[in-house]
Amino acid sequence: MSVLIKNATLLSGKKADILLQEGKISKIRPSVSASAEERIDASGLLALPGFVNTHTHCAMAILRGLAEDLRMEDWLSAVRKKEKNLSFAQVRAGALLACVEMLKSGITCFSDMYFHMDAVASAVQQTGIRAVLGYGMVDLGEPGLRKKELAETKRFVKKWHQKAEGRISCAVAPHSVYLCSAELLKQSFHLSKEFGLRLHIHLSETRKEVFDCLKMTGKRPAFYLESLGFLGPSMVAAHCGWLSKEEVRVLARHGVSASLCPVSNMKLATGATAPLPEMQEFGMNVSLGTDGAASNNSLSMFDTMKLLGLAQKNSRWDASIAPAHYILSAATEGGANALGIKSGRLQEGLLADLILIDMRAPNLLPWHNFQSNIIYCAHPGNVRHVFVDGKHLVQDGRLAFIDEEKIKDEFISQASSLQG
Amino acid sequence: MSVLIKNATLLSGKKADILLQEGKISKIRPSVSASAEERIDASGLLALPGFVNTHTHCAMAILRGLAEDLRMEDWLSAVRKKEKNLSFAQVRAGALLACVEMLKSGITCFSDMYFHMDAVASAVQQTGIRAVLGYGMVDLGEPGLRKKELAETKRFVKKWHQKAEGRISCAVAPHSVYLCSAELLKQSFHLSKEFGLRLHIHLSETRKEVFDCLKMTGKRPAFYLESLGFLGPSMVAAHCGWLSKEEVRVLARHGVSASLCPVSNMKLATGATAPLPEMQEFGMNVSLGTDGAASNNSLSMFDTMKLLGLAQKNSRWDASIAPAHYILSAATEGGANALGIKSGRLQEGLLADLILIDMRAPNLLPWHNFQSNIIYCAHPGNVRHVFVDGKHLVQDGRLAFIDEEKIKDEFISQASSLQG
Repeated sequence: MSVLIKNATLLSGKKADILLQEGKISKIRPSVSASAEERIDASGLLALPGFVNTHTHCAMAILRGLAEDLRMEDWLSAVRKKEKNLSFAQVRAGALLACVEMLKSGITCFSDMYFHMDAVASAVQQTGIRAVLGYGMVDLGEPGLRKKELAETKRFVKKWHQKAEGRISCAVAPHSVYLCSAELLKQSFHLSKEFGLRLHIHLSETRKEVFDCLKMTGKRPAFYLESLGFLGPSMVAAHCGWLSKEEVRVLARHGVSASLCPVSNMKLATGATAPLPEMQEFGMNVSLGTDGAASNNSLSMFDTMKLLGLAQKNSRWDASIAPAHYILSAATEGGANALGIKSGRLQEGLLADLILIDMRAPNLLPWHNFQSNIIYCAHPGNVRHVFVDGKHLVQDGRLAFIDEEKIKDEFISQASSLQG
Repeated sequence: MSVLIKNATLLSGKKADILLQEGKISKIRPSVSASAEERIDASGLLALPGFVNTHTHCAMAILRGLAEDLRMEDWLSAVRKKEKNLSFAQVRAGALLACVEMLKSGITCFSDMYFHMDAVASAVQQTGIRAVLGYGMVDLGEPGLRKKELAETKRFVKKWHQKAEGRISCAVAPHSVYLCSAELLKQSFHLSKEFGLRLHIHLSETRKEVFDCLKMTGKRPAFYLESLGFLGPSMVAAHCGWLSKEEVRVLARHGVSASLCPVSNMKLATGATAPLPEMQEFGMNVSLGTDGAASNNSLSMFDTMKLLGLAQKNSRWDASIAPAHYILSAATEGGANALGIKSGRLQEGLLADLILIDMRAPNLLPWHNFQSNIIYCAHPGNVRHVFVDGKHLVQDGRLAFIDEEKIKDEFISQASSLQG
């Protein structure tokens, strides 16, 4: 499969032709002459690397809107009540719908943690998106449960790692310091090291988590994880809302990546605004996550990028914080780095995961500042074309290879039993 | 002109037919049989009142992206440097583009304060949107300037009030307590009373404004305005970020409406989160504004609604604050009340300003909670049809009566000279 994209505009404002071959960006130059199976005129279209959503629970799309305007504890109990009865078919329907939503809004890769992960993997396989998938492990300190959780992770990894033409990578995903024992966290780290997998964990989402961890271990969450030998460059820490500056310093030193989820944090009223300036100061890799649709409630990276900028500026009373180019880089290159995926930039040799944005949309005119237009003005409706692994999945706003209507019908049917 | 909308879904989840006649909603019932010039099958479409954007400077679309990631004082000086040379043609091009952007994202009425307001009025006339327009008066305490500003307001009112088939109302718009003398504020109030016009003013956007007002008058801004006899039910106070609880009580008692602009406030890092719970406590009418595109940078009411909810919840550490139904009502009915426009609800006898949203969009499924889906999941790309004054302006996402491409070409040409 080869695609030649002609006359695309780059973030620099310059024009380029982009040749996609065998899943990679094989050429990106002012002019490329090559024969290709598909040829696209990208005049009036801005080429960007696809967005990388480094923290979500995509199947929760099926719970979207079921627990609204509730205090955190009520939200949690409402969500858990629904979650515990979710069937494989419901998780699959939720994951498929979420993949459709993400692809159409320009997300080409996501990192997920949930249960019934075979259903999520099959949705990734079917839709053509790229993903890093981890079974969310919870042992609550019970050795029997721990053994079962680790076995499920191993089974899932064996079945899916590097599958779907290489688009699926597996991760080891212990839920958090408050739902996992020290022993499970240690074994998770070793498992990730043994198989060369990402380590995906929730970290410092709420003040309660921090206080409980202090009470239980005498240490703040990041220090506690450090004491277990858990920290390393394969780790992706979701939320990071209530990290202290010293925790950021330690995480950065170990090469840990942050996945910031500002929309979810604000919607659940965690009171947190992640310490982004400190992350920048210590050179920590920062990426962005939408979190699940039960706490966002969209899976739009545009919302998340805009919110990150707004929340950071307002919380520090300094509008120069979190400049647009930094946010855009976090949503693309930062995400790819966090997940160990060779994408996130438009560069020869990298994966052909990219999107084309309609530069004539009225909400994006004029193009005085490219980065700021993407962060503060664009919405999913502006995404016209999406390529993953060199495959032209979204064509002029429509999914080319899958039956969107059928996925939606099945989703609506699976969601209907959840109300009440 | 009559339009019969069949099988639309309402916020209640029930279906209805909606008959638009002579600019009004003449019938809204489970089933309407009537002959109409146009008939629309709205199966799978959600009918909502059009959004009312109660505070913007729409021509600033032409400055979008020119002053990014700057501290407030640097932002102000960058914007003012560009503004002072804006031509009539540039203001007109900016206003036209903004009207296109607003209409396509479901805004059917907006309230504006700027200069070259004849250009803005002509854009409203041409595009078919509804607007409340005020020439932004600034006298800096100079009697000569004051006289000139008031004369310009009178001239503008005489020329445009109730024009464009009644879609334009004029307002009296003294900029703020810090750019207007007590005398100008008093005369503005009397002018608004004499002609029955709305009073549109910036209020308590920044802490600096509050401190300067205290220093200059010994009173906080709302108390100062009260002492001048300025407060009344025709007043729309934009921002209201730094109001004290006592100021909210006084404004509410006088029937003043707030226009909250959370995106702009956060982007400029004012540090403010408007005291919404107090406004609710005292029964103050609350509406929403996007502010101008130089400080947002979109004119999307979806962004503004989502941000309002997120900012309120997070700042009070309580996710039950600002429930979705309240936010949606502020963006529609609250706005109509603020501007004295008979719209904002789908009800027989009210103006036929309404929109239809695609209920099959993947980002909006499932419909467990209608209000929350609109606030937290929808984006401008989900708006399929827009009616203003009973006229079907946006048809399946496209502007029906105006040449959007021509407007954009002229806008791009007018914007190009602003860079550097």
